Amino acid sequence: MASPGSGFWSFGAEDGDKDNETENPSTAKAWCQVAQKFTGGISSKLSALLYGEAERSSDTGTKEEMDSENKAMSSHYDKNACKCQKGGCDFSSLYSTDLLPAKNGETDTLCFLQEVMDILLQYVVKTFDRSTKVIDFHYPNELLQEYNWELSEQPQTLDDLLLNCKTTLKYAIKTGHPRYFNQLSTGLDMVGLAADWLTSTANTNMFTYEIAPVFVLLEYVTLKKMREMIGWPGGCGDGIFSPGGAISNLYAMLIARFKMFPEVKEKGMAAIPRLIAFASEHSHFSVKKGAAALGIGTDSVILIKCDERGKMMPTDLERRIIEVKQKGFVPFFVSATAGTTVYGAFDPLIAIADVCKKYKVWMHVDAAWGGGLLMSKKHRWKLNGVDRANSVTWNPHKMMGVPLQCSALLVREEGLMQNCNQMHASYLFQQDKHYDLSYDTGDKALQCGRHVDIFKLWLMWRAKGTTGFEAQIDKCLDLAEYLYNKIKNREGYEMVFDGKPQHTNVCFWYLPPSMRNMEDNEERMSRLIKVAPVIKARMMEYGTTMVSYQPQGDKVNFFRMVISNPAATHQDIDFLIDEIERLGQDL
Amino acid sequence: MASPGSGFWSFGAEDGDKDNETENPSTAKAWCQVAQKFTGGISSKLSALLYGEAERSSDTGTKEEMDSENKAMSSHYDKNACKCQKGGCDFSSLYSTDLLPAKNGETDTLCFLQEVMDILLQYVVKTFDRSTKVIDFHYPNELLQEYNWELSEQPQTLDDLLLNCKTTLKYAIKTGHPRYFNQLSTGLDMVGLAADWLTSTANTNMFTYEIAPVFVLLEYVTLKKMREMIGWPGGCGDGIFSPGGAISNLYAMLIARFKMFPEVKEKGMAAIPRLIAFASEHSHFSVKKGAAALGIGTDSVILIKCDERGKMMPTDLERRIIEVKQKGFVPFFVSATAGTTVYGAFDPLIAIADVCKKYKVWMHVDAAWGGGLLMSKKHRWKLNGVDRANSVTWNPHKMMGVPLQCSALLVREEGLMQNCNQMHASYLFQQDKHYDLSYDTGDKALQCGRHVDIFKLWLMWRAKGTTGFEAQIDKCLDLAEYLYNKIKNREGYEMVFDGKPQHTNVCFWYLPPSMRNMEDNEERMSRLIKVAPVIKARMMEYGTTMVSYQPQGDKVNFFRMVISNPAATHQDIDFLIDEIERLGQDL
Repeated sequence: MASPGSGFWSFGAEDGDKDNETENPSTAKAWCQVAQKFTGGISSKLSALLYGEAERSSDTGTKEEMDSENKAMSSHYDKNACKCQKGGCDFSSLYSTDLLPAKNGETDTLCFLQEVMDILLQYVVKTFDRSTKVIDFHYPNELLQEYNWELSEQPQTLDDLLLNCKTTLKYAIKTGHPRYFNQLSTGLDMVGLAADWLTSTANTNMFTYEIAPVFVLLEYVTLKKMREMIGWPGGCGDGIFSPGGAISNLYAMLIARFKMFPEVKEKGMAAIPRLIAFASEHSHFSVKKGAAALGIGTDSVILIKCDERGKMMPTDLERRIIEVKQKGFVPFFVSATAGTTVYGAFDPLIAIADVCKKYKVWMHVDAAWGGGLLMSKKHRWKLNGVDRANSVTWNPHKMMGVPLQCSALLVREEGLMQNCNQMHASYLFQQDKHYDLSYDTGDKALQCGRHVDIFKLWLMWRAKGTTGFEAQIDKCLDLAEYLYNKIKNREGYEMVFDGKPQHTNVCFWYLPPSMRNMEDNEERMSRLIKVAPVIKARMMEYGTTMVSYQPQGDKVNFFRMVISNPAATHQDIDFLIDEIERLGQDL
Repeated sequence: MASPGSGFWSFGAEDGDKDNETENPSTAKAWCQVAQKFTGGISSKLSALLYGEAERSSDTGTKEEMDSENKAMSSHYDKNACKCQKGGCDFSSLYSTDLLPAKNGETDTLCFLQEVMDILLQYVVKTFDRSTKVIDFHYPNELLQEYNWELSEQPQTLDDLLLNCKTTLKYAIKTGHPRYFNQLSTGLDMVGLAADWLTSTANTNMFTYEIAPVFVLLEYVTLKKMREMIGWPGGCGDGIFSPGGAISNLYAMLIARFKMFPEVKEKGMAAIPRLIAFASEHSHFSVKKGAAALGIGTDSVILIKCDERGKMMPTDLERRIIEVKQKGFVPFFVSATAGTTVYGAFDPLIAIADVCKKYKVWMHVDAAWGGGLLMSKKHRWKLNGVDRANSVTWNPHKMMGVPLQCSALLVREEGLMQNCNQMHASYLFQQDKHYDLSYDTGDKALQCGRHVDIFKLWLMWRAKGTTGFEAQIDKCLDLAEYLYNKIKNREGYEMVFDGKPQHTNVCFWYLPPSMRNMEDNEERMSRLIKVAPVIKARMMEYGTTMVSYQPQGDKVNFFRMVISNPAATHQDIDFLIDEIERLGQDL
């Protein structure tokens, strides 16, 4: 088998992580091995493709090239790779003006895009390689000084741009890495990624059917399916994909207000009574953000008490609604949470729906994090009652692993969004177009232009089927239970709340050996506060794994483990625990 | 030179458009020619790469294969291509579960992603090929019926997914096509596209430095540079990339309100006086949408008169501000427009700034469309006075050709956004992290998660330099002037407003021969209303070009031509005029 030309493997050369270098193959080597598995000899072909026959024939250089991987990327790249002619393209003398739409720019364009693609494919393979770091951490001032990121008058060569791409990925967090547990959105789905590349290439806007015919139809089909899964009869209703859960929640509050007092659209808040919204103590901060933005004010968001598992207490909700009414204010919006951010708690939706019905209050369910469980026959009971909601936020970019961003707001009543938000812009929503105007969905949005977020979700759904999403989600929940069982009685661990986790959130303190026999007093607490931040900082500096921590109410800093990455396995959970103990034992 | 294997060219097979088939090479042939230009023989290599040596050796098949291009894509694809083994991967028996993170999934993953990439590369080449259609138009119900877009329980094969991708692109609008003039955002920048692919691959979120170190720094660098170009001393100030111009404008209004009445955040609109916002009659509808959402109400947005060129009249602004104050209301926000949506007018910013200063009103400049002209030494005078604004919306996804979405809101006063929007979510913005927390920008946003929109702008800026953006923008403005000069005295054309366009908007009526000698009465007007919609509908059905039309005030439907696509040339302008005349002559 022919060997790769020089420079081809240069990206990530020094990523043969310091810690792993001797035990594991460097990632570049791993990549080599991967490429060599191709039955069609893709390795040599890709190499030839990029460097031309002349370079390819210097096969004898292999050994030296493989060694040179371990030198620093930038210098290696500068000295060896930049000057290569790749597929006939000398990127060091080419500029973006040589690419399409330049005359005869096809060759250079294809070469350039293929070269970028190779960089990305290497990153993808490395993402799933446990011997690579999750993060190559640098402090902001270091990173600012280490490279020249400035924008200047003059253009850079394509070679420089390729280096920019490599450098950017070198310092990126591998959010798809099996040991990245830091956020609710983790993982890198291959079909979702492909779909997002296609979306970028199609480069259009959701506001009219005219310029996004397929995407508009796919949004229609997918929202309907999601409403069916919520349980609204026939999948009827409305909805939109919005730029994230916070905006979806804001939409819900906006529509709820309009439903109760449509005059607010023209007259503003001054013309209507004081409105009060309700959400639990554990709810997401976006409910307050939304209230501030909408001119309702954060003081008009009442936080309802939770039980020890972080679930809203419907009795407290009812009590507070009655109080508010007695004051002459108008309860207009209850945001129940299906999967809280920290504990992963599911509010009791049926009891909350009963209260909302009794007092005629809009019921919103913020299922940004928990919505994915609707895919699972085993777990969907946790959202029982969601069908009684007036609106639901559901972020497929969280538990379903769709690339960021992908958040849906679903509304039971059709036409309300349109009435609430429409401004009839005549330059966009002409009424004398030649097709069915109900597909011009832009006027129901708060935005004008709207990014295409649908294709990646739709294509992933086609790829997996509902059963595939179900398997993926069930697996993540099983892993969370595995983690819980592993640490609940383990020395040095304390659970933040008792009982099996309802979602994949597992919240716990790690106690270093020196603290295990301390009395539960202030000194202990003041030391415990610092444990998680120090372990987290060390994790990031070693780059081996990432997990979040935070305080909650009177509970000091604890780890919040979440699992949404289909790449994670039992071994990765074991690794996390080992790593916490390794990094925290001396504290 | 070896010829391609069967199926490789199959995408777009029937795109050898009916109209052009005899005069021009079909696009598949054009693509062949492109591939054959590669010095390294990329054509045969790619072919070999995808189909393996065995298939490649059947070179004799060329003639038949080239002919078969002209058969319908779907059947061709089904019969010939689907069963091919590509680089050793038989996609018809593979599923997404065979891809990474599947064990030993590297080979199948790389094959699949490379196959998707080839589909995208073909689409890119076709985008710039004038012999392809801008759009292959189908009515919504046709498109819904023609394919099965439904989501089901069971997974599809990778082969099916590839077909989904091809079908989606087949019906997509080629927004980068040199003859696509339909929106303010047109064009497909190769570097921007590559950068967007990388962004998808990095799949992260802007809220903290922790998970987006490089992107956060690039946003910092780029926003500073944009503020420098606005003319704020030292580039000081604040800003954020938001999901589109409408949201950027909403941010501006939100911050202006908070600046004047910070208590609104907690107390809501009920606690403060009635606020009034001002924008011109020609301003974007998002000002009203924002006012409705923020609880201010659309009745509290006063539309200021414009002159015949669509520019706000500062004398009318002052008069209305005085009126409002006399009523005891509080003028708090003036949105001047730099580049209106329809006429491309630039409001007189210096005079407006004087009025705002006199009455202590927040001055916002909606330069979503016109901001790009700040890049041009020749045209930036049109924004003179923008440095006196308190906030500026500037969408690089419009005049600068950055892929969607890329919109910046820039604010002169630092810290205001943070104070206005922060909610101190402890699970995300921990105060005991080990790095400089000023880089955790998430709490200044209304959103929680925020899509990475910065990399494509930053990389394009590196690629072009400021001078490159300048050349690109100047060229578009030159083309608009060319169009204006061409039609201003041409038989059958009437300009909507007199004089050379200030931006690339050229607004005109086309009069079919049958209407040219009609008196200017109601009958003429009722016929004229229908001309642009009919021509537009025909353009879309032929798929040859796309341009927008709309009424404005008492002016009935006219064409609004805009040029933001660097791929457009004088010939494309000529083509548009010919096409309007060809499609409209019988009306």
